[in-house]
Amino acid sequence: MSKLLEEFQDYLSKMNQYEHVTTLLYWDMKTGAPKLGQAGHVEALTHFSTEAFALSTSEKLGEMLAGLAKPEEFDALTDTWKFIVTRMKRDFDRDKRIPADVYAAFVQTQAEAGNVWVEAKEKSDFSLFAPYLQKMIDLTVEITGYTDPGMEVYDALLDQYEEGMDSATIDGLFEDLKKELIPFVKEILLRQKPENQAFKGCFDTNGQKSVQDMLLDYIGFRKDAGSVGESEHPFTLNFSSKDVRLTNHYYEHDPISAIFSAIHEGGHAIFEQNVNPEYDNTVAGSCRYMGLHESQSRFYENILGRNYNFWLPVYDTLGELLPPFQAISLDDFYREINHVKNSFIRVNADEVTYCFHIILRYEMEKAIFRDHVPVNDLPALWNRKMQEYLLITPANDAEGILQDMHWSDGGFGYFPSYLLGSIYDGMLLDTLQEELGDVDELLKSGKIGEITAWLNRKIHRYGSTRKPKDAIMAVCGKEISAEPLIRYFKKKYTKLYQI
Amino acid sequence: MSKLLEEFQDYLSKMNQYEHVTTLLYWDMKTGAPKLGQAGHVEALTHFSTEAFALSTSEKLGEMLAGLAKPEEFDALTDTWKFIVTRMKRDFDRDKRIPADVYAAFVQTQAEAGNVWVEAKEKSDFSLFAPYLQKMIDLTVEITGYTDPGMEVYDALLDQYEEGMDSATIDGLFEDLKKELIPFVKEILLRQKPENQAFKGCFDTNGQKSVQDMLLDYIGFRKDAGSVGESEHPFTLNFSSKDVRLTNHYYEHDPISAIFSAIHEGGHAIFEQNVNPEYDNTVAGSCRYMGLHESQSRFYENILGRNYNFWLPVYDTLGELLPPFQAISLDDFYREINHVKNSFIRVNADEVTYCFHIILRYEMEKAIFRDHVPVNDLPALWNRKMQEYLLITPANDAEGILQDMHWSDGGFGYFPSYLLGSIYDGMLLDTLQEELGDVDELLKSGKIGEITAWLNRKIHRYGSTRKPKDAIMAVCGKEISAEPLIRYFKKKYTKLYQI
Repeated sequence: MSKLLEEFQDYLSKMNQYEHVTTLLYWDMKTGAPKLGQAGHVEALTHFSTEAFALSTSEKLGEMLAGLAKPEEFDALTDTWKFIVTRMKRDFDRDKRIPADVYAAFVQTQAEAGNVWVEAKEKSDFSLFAPYLQKMIDLTVEITGYTDPGMEVYDALLDQYEEGMDSATIDGLFEDLKKELIPFVKEILLRQKPENQAFKGCFDTNGQKSVQDMLLDYIGFRKDAGSVGESEHPFTLNFSSKDVRLTNHYYEHDPISAIFSAIHEGGHAIFEQNVNPEYDNTVAGSCRYMGLHESQSRFYENILGRNYNFWLPVYDTLGELLPPFQAISLDDFYREINHVKNSFIRVNADEVTYCFHIILRYEMEKAIFRDHVPVNDLPALWNRKMQEYLLITPANDAEGILQDMHWSDGGFGYFPSYLLGSIYDGMLLDTLQEELGDVDELLKSGKIGEITAWLNRKIHRYGSTRKPKDAIMAVCGKEISAEPLIRYFKKKYTKLYQI
Repeated sequence: MSKLLEEFQDYLSKMNQYEHVTTLLYWDMKTGAPKLGQAGHVEALTHFSTEAFALSTSEKLGEMLAGLAKPEEFDALTDTWKFIVTRMKRDFDRDKRIPADVYAAFVQTQAEAGNVWVEAKEKSDFSLFAPYLQKMIDLTVEITGYTDPGMEVYDALLDQYEEGMDSATIDGLFEDLKKELIPFVKEILLRQKPENQAFKGCFDTNGQKSVQDMLLDYIGFRKDAGSVGESEHPFTLNFSSKDVRLTNHYYEHDPISAIFSAIHEGGHAIFEQNVNPEYDNTVAGSCRYMGLHESQSRFYENILGRNYNFWLPVYDTLGELLPPFQAISLDDFYREINHVKNSFIRVNADEVTYCFHIILRYEMEKAIFRDHVPVNDLPALWNRKMQEYLLITPANDAEGILQDMHWSDGGFGYFPSYLLGSIYDGMLLDTLQEELGDVDELLKSGKIGEITAWLNRKIHRYGSTRKPKDAIMAVCGKEISAEPLIRYFKKKYTKLYQI
């Protein structure tokens, strides 16, 4: 190993310590820290994020990366280190253009906005959140001006979360979905079934936690390399492939929410736990492509978790852990978890109308960054779009524009990833069945481990080393298309609703 | 404010960020991190502890402290800042003598030993822990040689946890206790009652958590400035008065353990939550005197929590939250929580025989540091002393020498603090009753808030600014004596056991 590479690796190891503690501070703020303790955490997070930023934009790092990029060093690197150097050099050249004070302001506002969002949602008062949202938008625009000068802001944001994606491509995919799904959902809604009151009962939250543990184990989440916390909104984060954390939120009168959040976050977590451990603590590890990440969480949640056969081997156990389920047949449960209806909350939406929730947010974000719609007009715009696509209007902001944490976190451009993930899932399902056989049969016979092993092999182990388009091409041998997802929806729901 | 003071305060604020994240890493290792994630945390803890150590021993800090100690700066300081500068200068002069690599080795060994201790205790295998214990002993001796050159090692350790205490003083206090309590416990044991089998039943751990929350609220722990986690052994830590964390461990077949651990740790936490917030993040805050700290946890646990009248206002609620208690009368509960018996586990011991558990550990530590008894001989020595004082011999190391985490953490000299705390409690109880009236009457009428307010005013708010001997003198007007504790024991247990 060259002296320069050794020096570089020591430097990365130091940088990693800062990322480690900022990750932990964030985790604890969301899961454990008391109200009055938040300010101390924000202060520490600001301090260490700023230090980490200084390390990631230092002259020294720039010199090392420039040195390693020279042929005499670069040619001697392994493929993994070639990837790391190339990727870090590109990020470095982008990030060093962000002034340190702007970055510090972003991190601090991110933390404050997160706390205010929780309060605003509790009080259903968008006006509390509005000034923080405005700050996050302004800082995002400002930072994008530094990182991607001359690029259209929203395209830059999309590329940041799903490299290689732009709004022209997404417009095409989403228009295909709209064209096919708007009339299809109308057909479904004509055959709408009444609400099943059994799911409105009281489901002990401790029992829900036991069900969650059972399901995480069943789908392949490893407890020795991960843990579970409780937060306002479920999320997953990781320190490395050896320590992956997910959270959940339990509602006494809605057991379905925590069950599917667990499977969803479990899918994210299984991805991270199975990245090649050699990539740990480098830019090659921890998948940075959000659409590809969502494809895994949504594969577990929807393609597997909302399949009748997924539940056959575990439904009795579900009833043992959460006794009210003993009075609910698997057929009723299956209908409930695939009950297509127009509803307000994205995370509780069925997998079909979910598409509209994302298309709405995608169009909201285009309105913010492309049409510069004022922040105070956003709740009304949200409500109009809800009415247009889902034929319903939120009674308040908590069930409207305040429902998601993403914007408080500065995560503009993230939402389309969810639907891109489902689009990839349609394609992955086709290929998985070609290679492993019928998914219904695999699930029915409890062979979900084979599916997880296939995803480990085909997707997870690569971490960030393959961009989404390349990953899908490598696994499926095709360009990205919404057709398989549409076909999956039509086959499943035509049967379920006897259309 | 002088320019130097301002510069000093900025420096302290930076130092505090490092303490903040090392505290958080420790907390998470004990409460949330998965097994495979421990190594990453140990690495980060080592990194940031070493950085913190560098900051706390830097030339720059030394110069600032020397400058502030000069009359022209010192005289202009407030009393609080005079205390901070004096105390930090003394600590600085001690700590800067520790070589950085020795300190880093100590922190890393501390983390590793903590993990190995958990495993050794699970497997009841002292041989796993022995090499780590040896390392902790060696490092402790080495570090004490730097911090307190020429001082007897064990006296230096005692002084570190309870400033102003030495083994000559403790020998005197503990001999008084032995002299009075050995025959008194014999009297009690002659009147021994059979075990109450009701407490061996199954007590839902979620119900135990609800009881814990109720009790913490009842004694005055504030949830907005603290939170509760789960760990192998209960402990309390704090970031500041605004964020105080405690942990508990729940046993399905022993509800008493978690109840009294909650009250005990709650007492520690109430102390920290009520330190003058102006002292936050300085050496004036967060009480550093372990005996004084234990006096508060043990006042809540024993003087209040094991008093019949404490339970009168909340016993019905206890039964609602943990239904098996509905079948147990308050009289039976009272007898159970004051059931004097010779037992193996310190944290489950009654308050009388508890004294022997501490005297044993005190004598073990004198054997380690004064008589240099080899590590491999310690389990046998432990067992002989158990037989001598408590007339029983542990069947294995898990219920013997491996039961406490303290030594894994390098906390030699800490154990005597528990009993010093109880000795102070006897004195505090006398004074409290002189000033507020009969404690039974206060508790019976649910006026525990008045007691907490009295302790806040008399002890808590001062944080570290008053040494234990000075604090007890200021509150009670007397030198430290074991007589009030002995009198309290005799009065209570003579009645209870009809001696």
